[in-house]
Amino acid sequence: MLAVHLENGVVSIVCRPRPRRLKGFALIRLLCGGICNTDLELQRGYYGFRGVPGHEFVGRVVEADSPVLVGRRVVGEINLACGGCDWCRRGLGRHCPRRSVLGIVRHPGAFQEFFVLPERNLHVVPDHVSDERAVFAEPVAAACEILDQVRIPRGAPVAVLGDGKLGRIIAQVLAAHGAEVHLFGRQKPRRPSSAAFNWVVEATGAPEGLRQAVALTRPRGTVILKSTVHGEVSLDTAPVVVNEISLVGSRCGRFEPALKLLAGRKLRVEKMISARFSLSEAPQAFARAAQAGTLKVLMLGQGGGGPGSCAA
Amino acid sequence: MLAVHLENGVVSIVCRPRPRRLKGFALIRLLCGGICNTDLELQRGYYGFRGVPGHEFVGRVVEADSPVLVGRRVVGEINLACGGCDWCRRGLGRHCPRRSVLGIVRHPGAFQEFFVLPERNLHVVPDHVSDERAVFAEPVAAACEILDQVRIPRGAPVAVLGDGKLGRIIAQVLAAHGAEVHLFGRQKPRRPSSAAFNWVVEATGAPEGLRQAVALTRPRGTVILKSTVHGEVSLDTAPVVVNEISLVGSRCGRFEPALKLLAGRKLRVEKMISARFSLSEAPQAFARAAQAGTLKVLMLGQGGGGPGSCAA
Repeated sequence: MLAVHLENGVVSIVCRPRPRRLKGFALIRLLCGGICNTDLELQRGYYGFRGVPGHEFVGRVVEADSPVLVGRRVVGEINLACGGCDWCRRGLGRHCPRRSVLGIVRHPGAFQEFFVLPERNLHVVPDHVSDERAVFAEPVAAACEILDQVRIPRGAPVAVLGDGKLGRIIAQVLAAHGAEVHLFGRQKPRRPSSAAFNWVVEATGAPEGLRQAVALTRPRGTVILKSTVHGEVSLDTAPVVVNEISLVGSRCGRFEPALKLLAGRKLRVEKMISARFSLSEAPQAFARAAQAGTLKVLMLGQGGGGPGSCAA
Repeated sequence: MLAVHLENGVVSIVCRPRPRRLKGFALIRLLCGGICNTDLELQRGYYGFRGVPGHEFVGRVVEADSPVLVGRRVVGEINLACGGCDWCRRGLGRHCPRRSVLGIVRHPGAFQEFFVLPERNLHVVPDHVSDERAVFAEPVAAACEILDQVRIPRGAPVAVLGDGKLGRIIAQVLAAHGAEVHLFGRQKPRRPSSAAFNWVVEATGAPEGLRQAVALTRPRGTVILKSTVHGEVSLDTAPVVVNEISLVGSRCGRFEPALKLLAGRKLRVEKMISARFSLSEAPQAFARAAQAGTLKVLMLGQGGGGPGSCAA
């Protein structure tokens, strides 16, 4: 089968045997994958990554222990937790210290024709939700995580800094929640007035984003940190202390609210798709995703032996 | 009367007329003042300060609109709020954008024989609480603020980084609350294991404190930022985001719980007094306070015309 391989910043296509399915796991055929900023960071050397990337996907279950899963379209939580520790028992396997992470940490990713994931990570996609909508489940879950962490009243003004992929999804999710969203970014360089918001989401992906976010936040307000910036960020902590601002790190979220949102009509994620490639065009897909102004780049599964496939 | 004057890093003693008492204000005679790290920061140029410093005090009311206050021993909240804005109406005058701050921002401080403060800022000290205990009301209130901002269960392990004045007071207040406090600092250089605490208080006063605090914090844990460091701090935000850590800036607090604690037996603040000087020895007092290893330095009021007083 075809697999995308990432090593030393180079994206290549390799031929591999299908992965072996262990007990408790499902074997999944990729229908559609999304390239995330984290994938581009992995390409730049983040986490010293080498292997098959990909953690945003929708796929079809080919084999599984649970017969009800076989043949179903699924999305999946990316953290593979041990299931036995305190974190896992509290329903926070996303923070399990022994976790591996699909396509990021010690578990081959979804950018290959077939891949495996624990059955307990999977969520069946409702029939009326298209592949190109369901593939947004993971970033939508990451946006929903904000609402699990901080209580934003309906109608409250919220600033979202960064109008890239994640910033726009966050803006849509918070608007669907009922917040009054103000999106600031490169495409919308309107300069916000300072200390104007009780809630500010930092999703710029840039080191200077945090400083701007703090400047925008009212005393006792909250900055939600979504950017994982590679390296150190410099920050004047005095306004954080004097104005008693809270900075809340925020990462992956639960898939249940994300799928519920995607099954409804409030999110318009499809308009964020900038380009589609087949899996065998992964190098071009990654190059396109890295271009300024590109939003979501999708890679479509091979659908069974078309050109560019391989016989393994 | 005698007043301490701070300008360009130099502490001097000047003779001044008594300040005029406006409506709503009390005229207070200093009984005892405490030198805080913020005073030392003001001396180093923080806030471009020039004037009379001092915001930790206990004094006796000499004149006031309210007859019940006259003759009483008082401590006082340091933020002079407008009283009319949203913040003030919510009981958060400490964040009033038009506030001045005793001895820090546009209001002469307590390190003078007589000073003025709004009557609504004052809290009467119970008779059995000594001057040298009551003078800790302001830093104890700042420590109590932590318990107003985050909910720390009784019995929970809490790390306090920094065994200077504020760190020790915080450690005592959190222990009095029932937390299992682990104090780390120069005097106790025991190296804590990483990611071990759900609550970490950063009170080192040093730029590297924040990084240490984040390393000590468990996923989903909280770092309370108490240090106001002059200048920029560099921080790797990736562990904050990945581990979904919250950083909570924390400053001044309410005096009510502080006075209640000081009236009880749980706090042993007096043992933190390193030296006592008279107000006329302020330059020596500041020099002593700046020496490594010094904890609280007190300045005692003149008590009416002793040596070093002046006739104005």
